[in-house]
Amino acid sequence: MASGEQVFMINGGGEDENNFQSNSTLQQKNGVDAQNLFIKEGILDKLDVDKLIASQTTPKTFTIADLGCPVEIDTFAAVQNVIDTVKHKLKLQSNTAHQYEHLSHNLEFQVLINGPTSRDFNALFRSIPMNKPSYYVAGVPGTFYSRLFPKSSLHFAYSSYSLHWLSKVPDGVGDERSPAYNKGKIYCMSSPKIVADAYEVQFTRDIEAFLKARELEVVPGGLVAFSIVTVPTDSKCLTPTFFEILGSVLLDMAAKGITSKKKVNTFNLPIYLPTPQLLEGLIKRNENFSIERMEQLCRPRESFYETDFPEKLTLHYRAVMESLFNDQFGTEVVNLMFDKFKNKVTETAVFMDLTHKQALESFVLLKRKP
Amino acid sequence: MASGEQVFMINGGGEDENNFQSNSTLQQKNGVDAQNLFIKEGILDKLDVDKLIASQTTPKTFTIADLGCPVEIDTFAAVQNVIDTVKHKLKLQSNTAHQYEHLSHNLEFQVLINGPTSRDFNALFRSIPMNKPSYYVAGVPGTFYSRLFPKSSLHFAYSSYSLHWLSKVPDGVGDERSPAYNKGKIYCMSSPKIVADAYEVQFTRDIEAFLKARELEVVPGGLVAFSIVTVPTDSKCLTPTFFEILGSVLLDMAAKGITSKKKVNTFNLPIYLPTPQLLEGLIKRNENFSIERMEQLCRPRESFYETDFPEKLTLHYRAVMESLFNDQFGTEVVNLMFDKFKNKVTETAVFMDLTHKQALESFVLLKRKP
Repeated sequence: MASGEQVFMINGGGEDENNFQSNSTLQQKNGVDAQNLFIKEGILDKLDVDKLIASQTTPKTFTIADLGCPVEIDTFAAVQNVIDTVKHKLKLQSNTAHQYEHLSHNLEFQVLINGPTSRDFNALFRSIPMNKPSYYVAGVPGTFYSRLFPKSSLHFAYSSYSLHWLSKVPDGVGDERSPAYNKGKIYCMSSPKIVADAYEVQFTRDIEAFLKARELEVVPGGLVAFSIVTVPTDSKCLTPTFFEILGSVLLDMAAKGITSKKKVNTFNLPIYLPTPQLLEGLIKRNENFSIERMEQLCRPRESFYETDFPEKLTLHYRAVMESLFNDQFGTEVVNLMFDKFKNKVTETAVFMDLTHKQALESFVLLKRKP
Repeated sequence: MASGEQVFMINGGGEDENNFQSNSTLQQKNGVDAQNLFIKEGILDKLDVDKLIASQTTPKTFTIADLGCPVEIDTFAAVQNVIDTVKHKLKLQSNTAHQYEHLSHNLEFQVLINGPTSRDFNALFRSIPMNKPSYYVAGVPGTFYSRLFPKSSLHFAYSSYSLHWLSKVPDGVGDERSPAYNKGKIYCMSSPKIVADAYEVQFTRDIEAFLKARELEVVPGGLVAFSIVTVPTDSKCLTPTFFEILGSVLLDMAAKGITSKKKVNTFNLPIYLPTPQLLEGLIKRNENFSIERMEQLCRPRESFYETDFPEKLTLHYRAVMESLFNDQFGTEVVNLMFDKFKNKVTETAVFMDLTHKQALESFVLLKRKP
């Protein structure tokens, strides 16, 4: 089993249908597999299930929270992975088969699935596995950057690919009177330092708020796991490059009068991709969690050479970010933007120095200190 | 404060807009007020808040479940009523202001709102009061005739006007080969005894299942409250009469070829209105609950003489039952049916012996035995 700062290679994914469930996750498909494996290992290595449930009076409940919940179909598979592993750990921690039977008979699982109030909980609830699952499901609306659950009520909380979404567009970057005005860009990568700083400040606040809320909600000894898109320290990362292509397509369209320059200048993605180093530093500021594991997952460069890569990437970005663009530019402009984006990615990929660029993700496992 | 079998008079309600939230509750508008009052009194008189929360290790959570949740706008008002009363009871039970401060500082409220998976949880979550409520909300999809929550996880559970909805149409009543075939009727009131028995069997099973699930979920000392539409023992109740008018309108329409006789014969309402006596007997079969209070609420006959009563009644039935009829007969037939129903109610009301007829509701407060 790998640990520490080792970099894992994963395969790119993506599917053909034009919907969020299938396409949100060019980075996820096998990232999720890796994450599920890390979660499994985390529970087996770091979670004292026996102690956690012994501290409750009978009957006992093990409570799991999914924070952010971007993809229904993966939610319940991830949930099952956690539950199966907790049960397995409980078996390993039991001295006798009889003791295990007794413990597991009295143990029930509660699964709290969070998402923003705007998400489609009706669809989520319809996607609960048909064969009555062996746990109690509830949906919890609201932002995970604030409190969502009672104090000390969670034993295991995880978040898949949601923490790089900021709680809001950073202050000033969309305001032409602000020194941090991000003119002509939609992300901060090639922007002046003051813009990048505004993004980092917002990300810092959000991670602090996330940990502050979880520090109260997770029981001592409980685990928090999350995966997040990150960038290498030298920033030679493909994802921000693609954000820049999206921005340049919009500028081209503004030059042709298809949309307005002002709309492009004031639009900024509420996304920040930190380096693993920044992330680690921010987590360490919270003294109530210990970092039990931190992994970097690296997408192999090969996947970017696949002939349908521009198509897949466009579908992915569309599924994940379309509504943001629609709100600012309207659906007609956005349709055209994604067409042009696909073409530009196709042209650009040939000239890209792919040998130095890679897409990264980070997996983090934290334990609530006693 | 009234108690025992006293009959309360309440005022009829109803509003003008054609939607469920406004119209589902010709019986509810002020029935809800009465219910909220009874819940308040129930918590003050019967709930040992101090003991319930003392049995938890710090931090402490008081968990409330709303089972069935028919009307969003009332849900959060009812929730607030419960929370305010629990806090008030806690104050009364505290020896000093300092003790109350300490207890209430460490106490958090969790509110679990249940509804069938088909209900619109998105709308429910959007209706959460804007001023961040002082409790944590979760939505719990599924039928309350089975387990929905972990063992001993609820302190107060209530259900408003949902328990007269059966989990399914009773066996046989829609099947022409069955002796309990309910030919030409959509409810059991004027049907042969075997049909009424089939309805009663289903209601019995459902109440048993409801109590069986709650008996596991509610902590010892916790309360279960519900209100339900009932009929007086002599069955001189207006609601089943109106069900019969609905059925006769459908038969008229079948005679004219607007719909088929077979569709009318095989359609039955999955609703059963018990007498308070039957209800009480069924509850007493479950030895884990004590009946702390049982009230009958009686709508004054005056409301049926209001000139817009047929209009209000039609809007109410439409809001509550339209989808059932749509599934069987299609929307066009159902539109016509409700028009004809309104006219027939207008005509019939004049000839009705209203002096002997009344609409009843029952409120029940149960306590989970230790």
